[in-house]
Amino acid sequence: MKVLLGVLCFGLIGLIAADNEPAWGYECVESVCSKVELTPENIKTAVSLSVCRTFCGRKTPGTLWPKPTGTVKLGQYVVHLDIDNIEIRRPPFKSQDELWSINEERFKAQISRKVSKPDQIKKGGKPLLIKVSVEEESTRLNSETDESYKLLLSQGGNEIIAEIKAKTFFGSRHGLETLSQLIMYDDIRREIQVVAEGEVSDAPAYKHRGLLLDTARNYFSVESIKRVIDAMGMNKLNIFHWHITDSQSFPLIIKSRPELSKYGAYSPEKIYTAENVVDIVKYGKARGVQVIPEFDAPAHVGEGWQKYDMTACFNKKPWQKYCVEPPCGQLDPTVDGLYDVLEDIYSEMFEMFDNPDIFHMGGDEVSTSCWNTSERIQNWMLSKGWGLTEHDFIKLWGHFQENALKRVDKVAKREVPIVMWTSRLTELPFVNEYLDKNRYIIQIWTTGSDRKVQDLLKNGYKLILSNYDSLYFDCGGGGWVNANNNWCSPYIGWQKVYMNIPESIAGMYHSQIYGAEAAIWSEQIDETTVDSRFWPRASALAERMWSNPITGWRDAEPRMLLHRQRLVENGIKAERLQPEWCLQNENSCPAEH
Amino acid sequence: MKVLLGVLCFGLIGLIAADNEPAWGYECVESVCSKVELTPENIKTAVSLSVCRTFCGRKTPGTLWPKPTGTVKLGQYVVHLDIDNIEIRRPPFKSQDELWSINEERFKAQISRKVSKPDQIKKGGKPLLIKVSVEEESTRLNSETDESYKLLLSQGGNEIIAEIKAKTFFGSRHGLETLSQLIMYDDIRREIQVVAEGEVSDAPAYKHRGLLLDTARNYFSVESIKRVIDAMGMNKLNIFHWHITDSQSFPLIIKSRPELSKYGAYSPEKIYTAENVVDIVKYGKARGVQVIPEFDAPAHVGEGWQKYDMTACFNKKPWQKYCVEPPCGQLDPTVDGLYDVLEDIYSEMFEMFDNPDIFHMGGDEVSTSCWNTSERIQNWMLSKGWGLTEHDFIKLWGHFQENALKRVDKVAKREVPIVMWTSRLTELPFVNEYLDKNRYIIQIWTTGSDRKVQDLLKNGYKLILSNYDSLYFDCGGGGWVNANNNWCSPYIGWQKVYMNIPESIAGMYHSQIYGAEAAIWSEQIDETTVDSRFWPRASALAERMWSNPITGWRDAEPRMLLHRQRLVENGIKAERLQPEWCLQNENSCPAEH
Repeated sequence: MKVLLGVLCFGLIGLIAADNEPAWGYECVESVCSKVELTPENIKTAVSLSVCRTFCGRKTPGTLWPKPTGTVKLGQYVVHLDIDNIEIRRPPFKSQDELWSINEERFKAQISRKVSKPDQIKKGGKPLLIKVSVEEESTRLNSETDESYKLLLSQGGNEIIAEIKAKTFFGSRHGLETLSQLIMYDDIRREIQVVAEGEVSDAPAYKHRGLLLDTARNYFSVESIKRVIDAMGMNKLNIFHWHITDSQSFPLIIKSRPELSKYGAYSPEKIYTAENVVDIVKYGKARGVQVIPEFDAPAHVGEGWQKYDMTACFNKKPWQKYCVEPPCGQLDPTVDGLYDVLEDIYSEMFEMFDNPDIFHMGGDEVSTSCWNTSERIQNWMLSKGWGLTEHDFIKLWGHFQENALKRVDKVAKREVPIVMWTSRLTELPFVNEYLDKNRYIIQIWTTGSDRKVQDLLKNGYKLILSNYDSLYFDCGGGGWVNANNNWCSPYIGWQKVYMNIPESIAGMYHSQIYGAEAAIWSEQIDETTVDSRFWPRASALAERMWSNPITGWRDAEPRMLLHRQRLVENGIKAERLQPEWCLQNENSCPAEH
Repeated sequence: MKVLLGVLCFGLIGLIAADNEPAWGYECVESVCSKVELTPENIKTAVSLSVCRTFCGRKTPGTLWPKPTGTVKLGQYVVHLDIDNIEIRRPPFKSQDELWSINEERFKAQISRKVSKPDQIKKGGKPLLIKVSVEEESTRLNSETDESYKLLLSQGGNEIIAEIKAKTFFGSRHGLETLSQLIMYDDIRREIQVVAEGEVSDAPAYKHRGLLLDTARNYFSVESIKRVIDAMGMNKLNIFHWHITDSQSFPLIIKSRPELSKYGAYSPEKIYTAENVVDIVKYGKARGVQVIPEFDAPAHVGEGWQKYDMTACFNKKPWQKYCVEPPCGQLDPTVDGLYDVLEDIYSEMFEMFDNPDIFHMGGDEVSTSCWNTSERIQNWMLSKGWGLTEHDFIKLWGHFQENALKRVDKVAKREVPIVMWTSRLTELPFVNEYLDKNRYIIQIWTTGSDRKVQDLLKNGYKLILSNYDSLYFDCGGGGWVNANNNWCSPYIGWQKVYMNIPESIAGMYHSQIYGAEAAIWSEQIDETTVDSRFWPRASALAERMWSNPITGWRDAEPRMLLHRQRLVENGIKAERLQPEWCLQNENSCPAEH
């Protein structure tokens, strides 16, 4: 069965004459887009790959990524769009004005980038009017934010009208993102086309859909961080979890404690000022991305603290005895002045991160053997009548956490939810003793099948999934402390990310899954490769968490290949998944069974 | 023991005052460069990391990569260099003039890129005069080319004089590359510095030191290919092996057979014109890199041949039955007209590739089951009184190879060495029957320990090593025909590349090792990630093949980390190997045993 797709077009005379005309077009045959040689006979019916994929087959949602969760009805036609004639009619809220200016510019740039040779584009086409209506004026992005939207495409007189309706700015910007995916370049007719009629209603399956970037093992420029966030916007991911400091470096300038970055940054240029952070937070907001700070403690500190006598085991060797990677270092919870320094750090972080509604306190990989190297710590513990067993050190950790949390609460002036990594402290029985389940969200980095995950769920904790077997995107490189492959090898393919299904991990407790984050720990990654490490694998996470499809990766693959091209088109150096041949020859590459 | 390194400097008053001054410098302590806090007391003796590494320790060769094989004597001092005052006095050959213009510009650009903040660089310093003397006028780069050079650095009056002496242009450009590595940026004094006195004599251990890029599974822009070649020049690699076509696409325009690229290219833009190739060949020559074409046949053909009735099993499904990856396709050796088409392809290739002194005919992964699908082939074989056993199909392959070779010889007008991949045809007894060891060089892609390698060596064949277990740089990604990891996983770390020692593979036959090539097969790689896939791992290959050091990767590691930075500085998106902390804290990261 051939389905006739249509391009409402005028005048196709003389195509395929010149040398640089495409030789191939596409036709929808039995729900698959097939390459056909362009001839004078088929030139009016053959369409570009994107147009064909938009309509061909009964598998909605065409080329949309992530897949909408509600209705998707697309007509059978595209029309030539005049890219110089796009208007966005904004909602009437002053507070959203700047956000809309950014989004208008961004949307128009996205459309322009679809044109491979701007000097050869066919002029003319219909204007596009985008009418945005939003109910709420607030531009606060947090776990309460409604991200749903409706998009309606229709032809009105001589223009195409796109209506986007949403409760919040954030829902409406998702709608705009979806609209951009319904606009495509036709390399046969050399014009931009838009789906002429259609309807999409959409809302995310999970609220917390994030990426983690570690900017301490290696530094990432502000520009490269923005590139990550921009791509997140294209994928409707909404949480940028910023692991900003670690034992290797302290790049964040704390004005009241300038020694931290002065001695802790890799160089005077490899820093983040408050202005940088504010800029990134704002950049995120415009793209529907909330930027969440992590200040990891009491372990994972070291560089930058040289001028404070508040750490234990810093850079102690051989590091294998005291921590998991060089250099070792932990805060000394027994030093009174420590909590004042922490308060200063928290205070400036809360300010620059726009008073976040969630805060990450780290808390992973605390080493008893590190603290046990310090006579000061030992003496303090003994003076309290404690022993020096593991349980005593966990008590010390509990002491740290309690006191640090007080300072967070003090600067936040309210009780914001706190995220902590799975660790010894989040295991039974300690977790119930030290971490209130109504206050703490636990971020899993152990494997999805680890019994500890079930323990936490049974005990009522909310979880963010970053199970390393599917969501640590730094896995699969060479070794850096030896010549083996790195600890969590092998490389995790996008298929595994896609099939990391919260319900499979949490079973009957799946309502306690708060969300998921894919992580880049940056020991072997910096801004030269951050794009290809995140993308397009983070798109697989995005669809899992936004759409949570019942279908599997195989079904998503042709759409994924197109979506990866969309990322590259927008300057994101996403990795190639397959030969371009597989993109052009749908369903011809998978191994048959 | 502290070794005092020196910077001949004038006026360091007021440093470490401003906020963006570095907090740390380096001192050489017990042959290791150690971070020291900059203070008014040590500010005159502390040096930058690069300067410290250049001189510290008895491990020559400082920061040079690849390690020179002859004398390396460096003085104890660097001097401030006036980067606006660099002169290259060229050899008097007209034929080398353009090459020197390119190299002069490139050298100066390399030096400029060392300055992180050009507007803050300290003015002044000594001029640098580079006197190049070359014995031979010829600029032909092939296996006979002498690549050795001597570099002498001295202070003369108010200038620094660098003398480079070499037999050929190619040796001298290697010398210039080495010189560029003896020039560094001092972030404490904000000036470019050059080693004031020194001597290097150097020549490669192996003649054939290459990279292979497959531009058929995915397309690579001319610009991205040039970036690979430029980085090759920085590593003294000298062979760019261009696997230009395959069954997935035919991007090379053959003017006399325009259908091949018209139907075979991924798009009208994803092509290489003869002008592109000539440009790339010239670009390579200026950087000491010979560009070698491969036309892979009789397997690995398909797209582009649609208008010729000369292939078998093209895109036949399920592909697993007829070839190793989609789409299948092989030339039909029984079609007489085929050899005329091949002659046209060879003829244009020889012309655009500057009449190469070595040619790659591919010859891998021929599938009997593919040819056996064709009645025409079966009939032809039966009509000759042959059977249809594997031996008969190998005879058919021999027939193809013999006739194709005749056409290569015809267009080359001489007998150039031919390279072929290991395959069934290169196994005993066939190899002796079909491939003359005086004519063919065999490129190994099987593992280094495969018995077939020994068979070839014993039978007198010269080998190029591309053993996949160490030199296939595409290994270690996700799957693309299924959800497993790709076939040759895991990822190969640079350490393994470095320790892929020809003598260990070839033993007593090591003189038959012609060279080695690291390969990027591009099923899952395109220009978005080509840099990080090649670099810095290809630098490990470069040192193995240029220097063939008796020391291992651990010894090379600190130098490798610096060299990777050098690549990044020059726009090559080489992968990070370790946290920057390990670069700044020499020998602090390796796991101790």
